Amino acid sequence: MKLVTYRVKERSLTIQGTFAADARMGWLNGEYVVDAGFAQEWAALEKGLPFRKVIPTDLLKLLDMGNEGMDLLRQIERATRGTNPAALTVEGEPVALRREEVKLLAPLPVPRSFRDFYAFEQHVKTSRARRGLDMVPEWYEIPVFYFSNHHAFVGPDTDVIRPAYTTALDYELEIACVIGKPGIHIPAEKALDHIAGFCVLNDWSARDVQRKEMKVGLGPAKGKDFATSMGPCLVTLDELEPYRKGDRWHLPMKASINGKLLSTGNAGDLYYSFGEMIARASESCRLLPGDVIGSGTVGTGCLLELGTEVHPWLQPGDVVELEVEGLGVLRNRIA
Amino acid sequence: MKLVTYRVKERSLTIQGTFAADARMGWLNGEYVVDAGFAQEWAALEKGLPFRKVIPTDLLKLLDMGNEGMDLLRQIERATRGTNPAALTVEGEPVALRREEVKLLAPLPVPRSFRDFYAFEQHVKTSRARRGLDMVPEWYEIPVFYFSNHHAFVGPDTDVIRPAYTTALDYELEIACVIGKPGIHIPAEKALDHIAGFCVLNDWSARDVQRKEMKVGLGPAKGKDFATSMGPCLVTLDELEPYRKGDRWHLPMKASINGKLLSTGNAGDLYYSFGEMIARASESCRLLPGDVIGSGTVGTGCLLELGTEVHPWLQPGDVVELEVEGLGVLRNRIA
Repeated sequence: MKLVTYRVKERSLTIQGTFAADARMGWLNGEYVVDAGFAQEWAALEKGLPFRKVIPTDLLKLLDMGNEGMDLLRQIERATRGTNPAALTVEGEPVALRREEVKLLAPLPVPRSFRDFYAFEQHVKTSRARRGLDMVPEWYEIPVFYFSNHHAFVGPDTDVIRPAYTTALDYELEIACVIGKPGIHIPAEKALDHIAGFCVLNDWSARDVQRKEMKVGLGPAKGKDFATSMGPCLVTLDELEPYRKGDRWHLPMKASINGKLLSTGNAGDLYYSFGEMIARASESCRLLPGDVIGSGTVGTGCLLELGTEVHPWLQPGDVVELEVEGLGVLRNRIA
Repeated sequence: MKLVTYRVKERSLTIQGTFAADARMGWLNGEYVVDAGFAQEWAALEKGLPFRKVIPTDLLKLLDMGNEGMDLLRQIERATRGTNPAALTVEGEPVALRREEVKLLAPLPVPRSFRDFYAFEQHVKTSRARRGLDMVPEWYEIPVFYFSNHHAFVGPDTDVIRPAYTTALDYELEIACVIGKPGIHIPAEKALDHIAGFCVLNDWSARDVQRKEMKVGLGPAKGKDFATSMGPCLVTLDELEPYRKGDRWHLPMKASINGKLLSTGNAGDLYYSFGEMIARASESCRLLPGDVIGSGTVGTGCLLELGTEVHPWLQPGDVVELEVEGLGVLRNRIA
């Protein structure tokens, strides 16, 4: 499934006294967003699906329910198969809306936490070389990450405000997984059980600030804390099976600015697998549903690597489009 | 006020159908913890305090109510003044419990986020010298911080488990403020309005892992993510006025291991004030109620600085006690 969090754009959708003005959860079905809660009403009324538990309208709450939550969602989705989304109605009101009628938010508008790794070798090598630094042997020993601001997530087709303190705004082409099942000391080979799904991630970076911060030794903070975009949807693992070989998902990745293709890569090139990243993150530390784990930037996946001779730092008005096969397009405009 | 979050230790406390087995909010009054919710019942019944809003049992929810929440709490506290805490009862059941009857948790068991600064000059100088590094000029230009794991907070008198991956476990003597009012682009001189209070903080550190991580450039993560202790209480600013000179609170700080005094310092020695830290953190980034902002370690406030010739790295069984005048004692044992 392609899970989304959305708000209705232009009209108020009410079903049985429920207003859809707030963020709600659903899934993509072609050109439609099917609302999970309203679809549950429909499935109960039209298909006799037993109504044992009310499905949450919030993806984080669904993840907190563990397997029970995802099983419930899959039952509802299966009940709607074979019915044209436009025909899904309860008391005359729609259960599914066309994509242009809704505003997609980040699948988790506020994740429970955000760790970003640094797991593509080419990116680390090139970025360090650009700062006049050699590769560090420690990078090959341990998958390293940093925590960033989980309260600064933005969704697709949303403006990203360039902070006043930077003149070197950059994008970063990444994929991220969302943890679906809590755990501590998770072995890499069991990590798959803990992944709810994958999505495209853009870890916006203020390179001038980041450079100064990193000299002090605590890593990037203001260089990264103003915005991270994620979306358009959270794709569950079953949909990504065709791309999987062992513990890698071979998803072609690309990034463009204002329609000009600048970065191409593949998620299969990760030096450390997501299993290894999850193993590392969960050593002596409990992971929780809704934790987001980023891959780090794919090789060539940012202007820092490409060089500003290829494209200048981002300016207001620039449109950055990240596309990962199987995961969709994440588009943001700089404001 | 000295705000606390607590659980009843040995008996179940019920008032009007409410069980106190879960974490609840209250305040310290001498040897007693007064329960905020039950005190509201008492104040309504005994003092006729209007019962317009139910006070949350969760400090984060109280902070989310803004001034209205803190005003309500202060009204309730004022109504209980002049009555011996032992005499505060509702239908024969106690509203206040003795400190030994409760288990104090971190004032915010799960803060909304955790930023830790690096704002004491002596600590930065000495720690860098121990790693063979000079002072970086950038440190004097900007107050630098990193994000750490807000899901690994532990309270006072709680065991801290030494991760299996470290043989160099250290403590860090710090103070932290909790944000009480949201804001973005907060000027340093207005930051006081955004602080709900201060508490003692111990940013436990695995120095061997941290050293490797920091070489890669993203700052400490596994070196710090397994535990941060905070407590015993969150002290509101009115109680700390006697210690304030301008934008500094001159609170004497000390740390001891197994009763042996090792570190002494003063919160007044901060190179960057909390106002400046808040200004930095809130540049282009919204701070939220419940965000925790740590000072960084005070000079001499960790074994890394003192040298393991003064005391070896922490071992299971060691008891670390951090004391900050006005804020209390934060004691943890290594397990």
